[in-house]
Amino acid sequence: MEIEIEGGSVTRILMGVSESTIKGHPHASISSRGAFDWTIQKIVRHNTSAFKLLFLHVQVPDEDVVFCICEENHSIMTVCHNFLLLGFDDMDSIYASPEDFKSLMNRDRAKGLHLLEYFVTRCHEIGVSCEAWIKRGDAKEVICHEVKRVQPDLLVVGSRGLGPFQRVFVGTVSEFCVKHAECPVITIKRSADEAPQDPVDD
Amino acid sequence: MEIEIEGGSVTRILMGVSESTIKGHPHASISSRGAFDWTIQKIVRHNTSAFKLLFLHVQVPDEDVVFCICEENHSIMTVCHNFLLLGFDDMDSIYASPEDFKSLMNRDRAKGLHLLEYFVTRCHEIGVSCEAWIKRGDAKEVICHEVKRVQPDLLVVGSRGLGPFQRVFVGTVSEFCVKHAECPVITIKRSADEAPQDPVDD
Repeated sequence: MEIEIEGGSVTRILMGVSESTIKGHPHASISSRGAFDWTIQKIVRHNTSAFKLLFLHVQVPDEDVVFCICEENHSIMTVCHNFLLLGFDDMDSIYASPEDFKSLMNRDRAKGLHLLEYFVTRCHEIGVSCEAWIKRGDAKEVICHEVKRVQPDLLVVGSRGLGPFQRVFVGTVSEFCVKHAECPVITIKRSADEAPQDPVDD
Repeated sequence: MEIEIEGGSVTRILMGVSESTIKGHPHASISSRGAFDWTIQKIVRHNTSAFKLLFLHVQVPDEDVVFCICEENHSIMTVCHNFLLLGFDDMDSIYASPEDFKSLMNRDRAKGLHLLEYFVTRCHEIGVSCEAWIKRGDAKEVICHEVKRVQPDLLVVGSRGLGPFQRVFVGTVSEFCVKHAECPVITIKRSADEAPQDPVDD
């Protein structure tokens, strides 16, 4: 029996990706890389033309801005940009002028773009179609909102695989998405041997 | 870049499948069929040789028995069989002799085998490799135990997609598996238009 695939369309997989929390390392977190590798190896496999990966990175809500990396030419499109001088997550510096905020914002944006560039480049190397964008807000709320808007076939989120005690403080994004996202959700727990000594170093 | 797939092995997807609860309808439940269809259409697609589906049906613990349907010739292997005269889920009849239990047990087993036959036949038609077996026990505990034993790449469970109030009474299997299964889990919620008027009729 022939497998009927609706309209011959590709399977669109939305992946929530995050940066490593190690200061000065604007790299993909271990859990995000793990979730990506798993999705390629176990789901996409060699059937690259049948899938499209959508990468969403949610940054803390210090500004209301949307950036997109266009897969074809890696150009950056700024869709919306309302600068708010509130809520930066790096408190090591003192901000004395509007310029301080501007440079910080640029650095913050650059980190997010580096993160997306990592995944877009990997997709390009593998030969799987993709799109990537950044949104600001509460990660779990934004991811579920984007699922509603983008309507992917599947949402993949990495998880640090923490114990119940640690989960009280972190790692509730995946649990929230499993309950509230309006599409099937896979949580990829990081394997124990990939966990850094300090849980913050993911 | 070539996608490296460990040992060139297939992606093994374990699916927990259940019967419809409508009396006299030994058919796959709407949620099980939905989860199967989704997995074929969105994950396996036409890449049938890269996947193997493993169907696990968990029956209520009235006996400790394992049946397997062998994909190649549909023969039934009884691995273990310890008959216990306790805990049947159908209370419409009075059981007066050991023979009554035996015929009931045969009917129960036949229902479970029909269920697995449905999925094995569909896999055969589609051309995707599969295995199917029945275990007795508490569904959520047995599924997680089988994940540990069989070590699939992915567990897929259907869910009735009930509201928080209804979830208190049913539908906790998927939630338990998401938390406790030692592999990534996808819960496929039944879409609203597939829900029967009476939730019990799934």
